[in-house]
Amino acid sequence: MFYHIKELQYNAKPSQPDPVYAKKLQEILGGQYGEMSVMMQYLFQGWNCRAENKYKDMILDIATEEIAHVEMIATMIAQLLDGAPANDQEQAAKDPAIEAVLGGMNPQHAIVNGLGAQPNDSVGYPWTARYTVASGNLLADFRANLNAESQGRLQVCRLYEMTTDPGVRDMLSFLIARDTMHQNQWMAAIEELEQTQGAVVPSSFNKEYEKQEVSYSFYNFSEGTESQQGRWASGPTMDGKGSFEYIQDPKPMGQIPDLKPGPAYIHGTPPKEMREAQNQTFQS
Amino acid sequence: MFYHIKELQYNAKPSQPDPVYAKKLQEILGGQYGEMSVMMQYLFQGWNCRAENKYKDMILDIATEEIAHVEMIATMIAQLLDGAPANDQEQAAKDPAIEAVLGGMNPQHAIVNGLGAQPNDSVGYPWTARYTVASGNLLADFRANLNAESQGRLQVCRLYEMTTDPGVRDMLSFLIARDTMHQNQWMAAIEELEQTQGAVVPSSFNKEYEKQEVSYSFYNFSEGTESQQGRWASGPTMDGKGSFEYIQDPKPMGQIPDLKPGPAYIHGTPPKEMREAQNQTFQS
Amino acid sequence: MFYHIKELQYNAKPSQPDPVYAKKLQEILGGQYGEMSVMMQYLFQGWNCRAENKYKDMILDIATEEIAHVEMIATMIAQLLDGAPANDQEQAAKDPAIEAVLGGMNPQHAIVNGLGAQPNDSVGYPWTARYTVASGNLLADFRANLNAESQGRLQVCRLYEMTTDPGVRDMLSFLIARDTMHQNQWMAAIEELEQTQGAVVPSSFNKEYEKQEVSYSFYNFSEGTESQQGRWASGPTMDGKGSFEYIQDPKPMGQIPDLKPGPAYIHGTPPKEMREAQNQTFQS
Amino acid sequence: MFYHIKELQYNAKPSQPDPVYAKKLQEILGGQYGEMSVMMQYLFQGWNCRAENKYKDMILDIATEEIAHVEMIATMIAQLLDGAPANDQEQAAKDPAIEAVLGGMNPQHAIVNGLGAQPNDSVGYPWTARYTVASGNLLADFRANLNAESQGRLQVCRLYEMTTDPGVRDMLSFLIARDTMHQNQWMAAIEELEQTQGAVVPSSFNKEYEKQEVSYSFYNFSEGTESQQGRWASGPTMDGKGSFEYIQDPKPMGQIPDLKPGPAYIHGTPPKEMREAQNQTFQS
Amino acid sequence: MFYHIKELQYNAKPSQPDPVYAKKLQEILGGQYGEMSVMMQYLFQGWNCRAENKYKDMILDIATEEIAHVEMIATMIAQLLDGAPANDQEQAAKDPAIEAVLGGMNPQHAIVNGLGAQPNDSVGYPWTARYTVASGNLLADFRANLNAESQGRLQVCRLYEMTTDPGVRDMLSFLIARDTMHQNQWMAAIEELEQTQGAVVPSSFNKEYEKQEVSYSFYNFSEGTESQQGRWASGPTMDGKGSFEYIQDPKPMGQIPDLKPGPAYIHGTPPKEMREAQNQTFQS
Amino acid sequence: MFYHIKELQYNAKPSQPDPVYAKKLQEILGGQYGEMSVMMQYLFQGWNCRAENKYKDMILDIATEEIAHVEMIATMIAQLLDGAPANDQEQAAKDPAIEAVLGGMNPQHAIVNGLGAQPNDSVGYPWTARYTVASGNLLADFRANLNAESQGRLQVCRLYEMTTDPGVRDMLSFLIARDTMHQNQWMAAIEELEQTQGAVVPSSFNKEYEKQEVSYSFYNFSEGTESQQGRWASGPTMDGKGSFEYIQDPKPMGQIPDLKPGPAYIHGTPPKEMREAQNQTFQS
Repeated sequence: MFYHIKELQYNAKPSQPDPVYAKKLQEILGGQYGEMSVMMQYLFQGWNCRAENKYKDMILDIATEEIAHVEMIATMIAQLLDGAPANDQEQAAKDPAIEAVLGGMNPQHAIVNGLGAQPNDSVGYPWTARYTVASGNLLADFRANLNAESQGRLQVCRLYEMTTDPGVRDMLSFLIARDTMHQNQWMAAIEELEQTQGAVVPSSFNKEYEKQEVSYSFYNFSEGTESQQGRWASGPTMDGKGSFEYIQDPKPMGQIPDLKPGPAYIHGTPPKEMREAQNQTFQS
Repeated sequence: MFYHIKELQYNAKPSQPDPVYAKKLQEILGGQYGEMSVMMQYLFQGWNCRAENKYKDMILDIATEEIAHVEMIATMIAQLLDGAPANDQEQAAKDPAIEAVLGGMNPQHAIVNGLGAQPNDSVGYPWTARYTVASGNLLADFRANLNAESQGRLQVCRLYEMTTDPGVRDMLSFLIARDTMHQNQWMAAIEELEQTQGAVVPSSFNKEYEKQEVSYSFYNFSEGTESQQGRWASGPTMDGKGSFEYIQDPKPMGQIPDLKPGPAYIHGTPPKEMREAQNQTFQS
Repeated sequence: MFYHIKELQYNAKPSQPDPVYAKKLQEILGGQYGEMSVMMQYLFQGWNCRAENKYKDMILDIATEEIAHVEMIATMIAQLLDGAPANDQEQAAKDPAIEAVLGGMNPQHAIVNGLGAQPNDSVGYPWTARYTVASGNLLADFRANLNAESQGRLQVCRLYEMTTDPGVRDMLSFLIARDTMHQNQWMAAIEELEQTQGAVVPSSFNKEYEKQEVSYSFYNFSEGTESQQGRWASGPTMDGKGSFEYIQDPKPMGQIPDLKPGPAYIHGTPPKEMREAQNQTFQS
Repeated sequence: MFYHIKELQYNAKPSQPDPVYAKKLQEILGGQYGEMSVMMQYLFQGWNCRAENKYKDMILDIATEEIAHVEMIATMIAQLLDGAPANDQEQAAKDPAIEAVLGGMNPQHAIVNGLGAQPNDSVGYPWTARYTVASGNLLADFRANLNAESQGRLQVCRLYEMTTDPGVRDMLSFLIARDTMHQNQWMAAIEELEQTQGAVVPSSFNKEYEKQEVSYSFYNFSEGTESQQGRWASGPTMDGKGSFEYIQDPKPMGQIPDLKPGPAYIHGTPPKEMREAQNQTFQS
Repeated sequence: MFYHIKELQYNAKPSQPDPVYAKKLQEILGGQYGEMSVMMQYLFQGWNCRAENKYKDMILDIATEEIAHVEMIATMIAQLLDGAPANDQEQAAKDPAIEAVLGGMNPQHAIVNGLGAQPNDSVGYPWTARYTVASGNLLADFRANLNAESQGRLQVCRLYEMTTDPGVRDMLSFLIARDTMHQNQWMAAIEELEQTQGAVVPSSFNKEYEKQEVSYSFYNFSEGTESQQGRWASGPTMDGKGSFEYIQDPKPMGQIPDLKPGPAYIHGTPPKEMREAQNQTFQS
Repeated sequence: MFYHIKELQYNAKPSQPDPVYAKKLQEILGGQYGEMSVMMQYLFQGWNCRAENKYKDMILDIATEEIAHVEMIATMIAQLLDGAPANDQEQAAKDPAIEAVLGGMNPQHAIVNGLGAQPNDSVGYPWTARYTVASGNLLADFRANLNAESQGRLQVCRLYEMTTDPGVRDMLSFLIARDTMHQNQWMAAIEELEQTQGAVVPSSFNKEYEKQEVSYSFYNFSEGTESQQGRWASGPTMDGKGSFEYIQDPKPMGQIPDLKPGPAYIHGTPPKEMREAQNQTFQS
């Protein structure tokens, strides 16, 4: 169960309205790697958690913090929209400042949301649950989380560079710091699980059922061998159980596919002889 | 530019048709973490790559392999669908075997695809480009890739447990091995980049612009302190630049939000006094 | 900002696993009118609220409760999935009970979520932010909320009829009661706003700019006049400002559209004479 | 069955082209609350109607009118696009008027639609059937309809304020008037049903199966009690069957969730002891 | 403008309920090539038409017919759902007939739609406007229409084979015949336009701006030359302006891509030297 | 299986950066009729092909070429983005050139993709697999392909007109030429199949099961008879088996629908008498 308190986790006070920037800021609210994504991803991971309680509790602690981040950014966006002009296009063409705003605004911020935040990204695409994952395997999911916090911090940093408003930058500097923490946190949790489980997800799958002769081979599927120069092409593998092998000229190991004709009731295109037989039956 | 050869990378030969399993197998073809996702993700990462050539080449090598994985699974699904019955429901209710197939099949496999594979997941949801990421920051993206290969191998292992068909299992054992390699490969590439860039993405953002006093704090946003028991709550941080701190009772640092009334032309709901003034004007 | 406590708002304890019912229950979790929808809709309405504080506070109180409802249903689904069989189709065809489960389960519950809840509806379609609205006009939005609680309670009642599990029914009886409250609550808030604002949204739009001669006419656009029998076809209008009028045989009031040919660079299909002129230029 | 006549229901004649406004106008054509939504929603409600004929007839009368509204707006958009310039960006930067148009246009209006309307909203997001509802319960659905007409009229009013073109305003004044009617109409139909059915949807669910002790309680899930000041917090409930009760400090009534470990074949993360046992088996 | 009459265009009377078949029938209602798609596609093509009136009128005639087809199928589905059982899973497992229905039904038909049709396809995916096209070029669009009628008739034929219900088959036989007409009709309209415009869309583009040396070459991008055996590999081209040429071993004509490093504020991954320089600045 | 070579199929070298045009160019990369669509459509058609090998080989030859087209356009977009400014809005308002770029750019190109291409269209909508079709009937699918190449070439021609950059135009002139070939190719393959199969898809469906009396009738569903003037209204039908007939005043052939009341557990709205009976039971 949850409780709400009225203060924000951190200040969200722009120095002045900026409806064009409000549109961009939507990316870290309702985008693929916005705060809604980590909020919902962590909530579902926490609720579905079947491991010991310290994991469930930890995941839900961050999830709960992320709701507060969504709240901060939504509040910021609503204030950035305060100065949105309603004027028509003709006037705008005469006044470059108005035009800049009208042309760059998300029209839905006015028409649909009445100068409020929306749960969408910076091109207006709605947040979707397919952005999240909760697989029941914590090592897999913590890697998803580390990725989300990496992409997220990257985007916040890019948005920081796109404004000079000190109030906006103040809020972003807080989010950037929290993403530093969250990257560190998932790295720590990953390390803990890798030490007991091994590095390859899932570790509980019986290795004998895996085609082990291709488990550590790098296939060079293009002309040239620049790809041979990396750590991934030679030396011991990261799971400590083999050595990377570089296959310069990989060959196919499988059959040439040859599908059977479909049954008549499918009305597909079988080979020519069958087609002609069918046509004699039905087209006469 | 690309060339195609007719042989599959590895055999895709089911021992017998199984249209119900064909539906499930769609998950690793067109699902969130299916082969289409890694194929498209790696292709775009490779084409957009602005780092040295060994990265671009390596990424496109794997991308090219993943096209072949999509091809193998699509071929497998088409063959698993060979035995799909067309009979009506009434007959099915009498014969449990037919019913099992009819009830569990994806109806589009027959109606839309004529017993062919489709670029969708196991519930028929179409593959979407929002499953992929190519951010221009390789460390961030390699974490995305490691996650994708972890979720992907987990799903293939689960599908392996759901069949006893030796031909299907043979193909899956190959995919599982390749995912072992790909997890190792991305871990290796991550290690290489972390050593030159540092662990927090993006490393090139000026730390002075970050609110550093909250960069290493774990906030306990729930009753109880089970979350204190993990590696993430104490000790040095993973980026080697601080120490985890556990904040047992986090307090808000921000304002109570108080939005200004919107302008009249938005026709929103301002505070009561303004509403009443508006109504006197327009409703009389 | 938000806090989490570990107890659920109400019990979510199924008497026994039922993976098929788990699939159906997803509808009120991640469906169009599931708890995620009201949770996100109320959160954004609250954060964007520009009216007096009692509204903002009230909206966020319910929003916060709805997060707890999502939590309860997710927890219930995870437990209902406990008994999901992994066996293959062949065995299932022999054992009707296993088959019933395998055929009716959402395959992603096993393959993707590892027997956990997912933020999707009962056919696996992901929750999307386009399910929500926060327009900045509270009367409009409270009508959206009343609709959501009406559709939601209807769906929960239908799900109640589809199970006999006393534990599941116990949880649903709680949700049904809360939806009774929430319908009453939005009706109360609507009444309050209608009394100060008037019944037609938005009340602040100048009536002189509205084509008032068609503001209270019912147009009978079909053969027959059954539609004349309702309250909407005669008597005073609900906003107290006019009388319903029944137009038995409505006529068009507009022009026959006649679009101009597009410019040449669009390469559309202009009328025949222009096409022939173009062809003489380019096809010779 | 349907017939078409060539005249529009009302005039759709812009005074001059305005491609930027054409983009905004898409919102009320193919947006969440655009005319396509009410058209499809009413059509399906009418076709699915199982109540007496006056309802089915009435719903289909409005549905048929809404097709004509879609037609009017599509025709308007095509004409507003007549003046779209094709020039390149370089020239645009020199001429603010051209630039205003190029920067603010929806690029698909030229590239995809050849200066025609599209079934999308103002940010180019395609209309989706998930915008509609037809539940089989008319009271629930009429509340959905009242909401749709409220949001719709609000958006049309906002668009009216964003243009000064008298031809566009003339068409919008007609749509605004029709939405006045449709709000009144659904209110009338709702009143009629509430009088026979009761106010809570669905009224036919047995109240004994509802946890009645929480059916009229307002839960204050946040600090502070501003939410106590509204009609929803005290006095008789709107269904006439109880009294609102304000619970200042709501407590959880449910269990602390504790999920069982998943079965081995799911390869999830069970508690530590089980993990270590698994690892001894498979990782040795 | 449109009028509705109460009779269906053709009978839609199932001989008995069949909720499982109702799910499948959704494909031709709200699927990619269902009746909603042609209805909306033709409506928008008609409304956007800038050619002579006979085209606009013809397109809208068919569009209007398609609304009636949607109506017929929706009505059929509602009746097929009449016999849907509400019983729980336990009872179903005992009675194979009930189970067959429960397992194969779309759960939303009961939970969301109250035994009514929905604007979705056979896996419950909602109809989306991205299924349609109205490009302003009639030859292009008539090819889209011919494709839609071909896919559509194919799907209806497959559904015909999946039932033995004489009432359902009667309705489908009507739809199949109408699709025969519509395929013929679009072929006729295509022929008419090709004769005045030429076969390649758009014919109005200046051929000198096209790289004509590759306009008629077939590239063999795979091992083996089976693809040489078709009409597309030799002989005169279909537009009557060239000859097909078979290129057995196509070579690249372009550069090896080499992207410039991005600017610092993007925080991407530039080549190694630049990375190290950046790290010296920010990580010290 | 596939191989990659590093050279592009054709040059992709813009003369200068143009981030605004980069946004537009996305349409032919990840749009409904962009290169991703034909690439994925042809790959799945090839993999699912059950006809003789020359078809499978031919389809996969083009599919493989289309991967190279995606590569070329992605590479072009990344270079067009090179000059994207990061400056804030305030500065932009002062400098029209910067503003033109900022206002017209896709913000995700910077925030999400770090100046790289994305698998989306020109309004940022993600590519989805529902853009493709692989039905198993080659004549149907080749018509889909002919449509795709027609829409595609039309869009590329429009984009050609929207730029003056010689490097961009050079690449587009290559794509336009290839689309000329691909239109010719599918026309040739269609002709070949129509000659053996007949023109109506599917030709293998038994004509006796089709309601042949309406197979060649044009229904005039609107006032006026302009639609009578086309090739589709008189003369022999295109399949050579009948004559077009123009029905000036089509009449319904079906019943007036009359749905049965739903069962009680659905809680829908039955006719009034039943509603009142229910209310007596539950509301007392």
